[in-house]
Amino acid sequence: MRQATESVTIRTSGQALYEFTRQARAFVTESGIGTGLLTVYVRHTSCSLLIQENADPDVQTDLIGFFRRLVPEGMDWLVHTTEGPDDMPAHIKAALTQTSISIPVVDGRPVLGTWQGIYLFEHRRRPHAREVVLHLIGE
Amino acid sequence: MRQATESVTIRTSGQALYEFTRQARAFVTESGIGTGLLTVYVRHTSCSLLIQENADPDVQTDLIGFFRRLVPEGMDWLVHTTEGPDDMPAHIKAALTQTSISIPVVDGRPVLGTWQGIYLFEHRRRPHAREVVLHLIGE
Amino acid sequence: MRQATESVTIRTSGQALYEFTRQARAFVTESGIGTGLLTVYVRHTSCSLLIQENADPDVQTDLIGFFRRLVPEGMDWLVHTTEGPDDMPAHIKAALTQTSISIPVVDGRPVLGTWQGIYLFEHRRRPHAREVVLHLIGE
Repeated sequence: MRQATESVTIRTSGQALYEFTRQARAFVTESGIGTGLLTVYVRHTSCSLLIQENADPDVQTDLIGFFRRLVPEGMDWLVHTTEGPDDMPAHIKAALTQTSISIPVVDGRPVLGTWQGIYLFEHRRRPHAREVVLHLIGE
Repeated sequence: MRQATESVTIRTSGQALYEFTRQARAFVTESGIGTGLLTVYVRHTSCSLLIQENADPDVQTDLIGFFRRLVPEGMDWLVHTTEGPDDMPAHIKAALTQTSISIPVVDGRPVLGTWQGIYLFEHRRRPHAREVVLHLIGE
Repeated sequence: MRQATESVTIRTSGQALYEFTRQARAFVTESGIGTGLLTVYVRHTSCSLLIQENADPDVQTDLIGFFRRLVPEGMDWLVHTTEGPDDMPAHIKAALTQTSISIPVVDGRPVLGTWQGIYLFEHRRRPHAREVVLHLIGE
């Protein structure tokens, strides 16, 4: 049984979904591990992780649109406002999605469905460098 | 240290919660692994996974009712509409719940609480065959 | 490769976020495992887990305020009402957050970001003793 870890930096420029499926697949391939468990973890609380459809980009537009409507800027009862109007909504959106996702690896590949992609979901307006840690255990 | 993997097909017929706790428990028992980590992963983006109460079925009714109200069909700003009025709401509901859940295994059993069941949460109206991958690592 | 497991009881007194980052870190340190995967699992369905900012306590106030507004008590269409007006909203809030979170461990520490804390999110009004299972695999 072996392990591999890697840190990936994803540079974001506004509220959107940033796919990094290719990097995650490459990490698994390079490890030489055939059967195992891949975990993806994001070290921030104003962005998050999501596995979603990567076929029609309209799906991403609508996901972003839904979360913007569900957690709008300007909710007047918020008390954490010092870091800008998009910060507290960002924390809430992160709480509603994932900080960590684990994916089984079989035959040397994560068992993603045909149309599943792994995304960083950026909830802040300004550019950020986001650190994602990849961990793999298996043999 | 050993691993086991299995693919389970869950046939759904409409928006509901489909319990597969029994299959997950059997998978752990058959592996002979006493201490470890069980991961459940669904290979689709219009259904999801949920650990919820399996005592009173009214809880499931209300969970479905809440998500239907939070993410109704017919939101007129949606752009991804080609796959039917229930498709984009399904992606959103999946984003709000889980694609992957990991459960520690102790004494040869997943450490589910007394009333916890593992469910596939189907968000589409029409019947689907959903593939869930089970992964176990331990000894 | 080795494993460690531990059960932690968190005593709650009302709807709030209860941080247990310190206990999780201590569990990893005491195991002597340098590289691995830490999984945190809660054995209940009316509370949940969250990784969120532990710098400004206002963030917690707003998270609680948002979920209270999104899933208010008194929704008149609920059918599961026998366990009190806060019970079904608690199940829904748990479904919208996490039951299980996995965090890579590198250099003997979970790779939590600088401001990330691990929280039990209690959704019930009355005091409860909540059981969280910690699992670590690595070497």
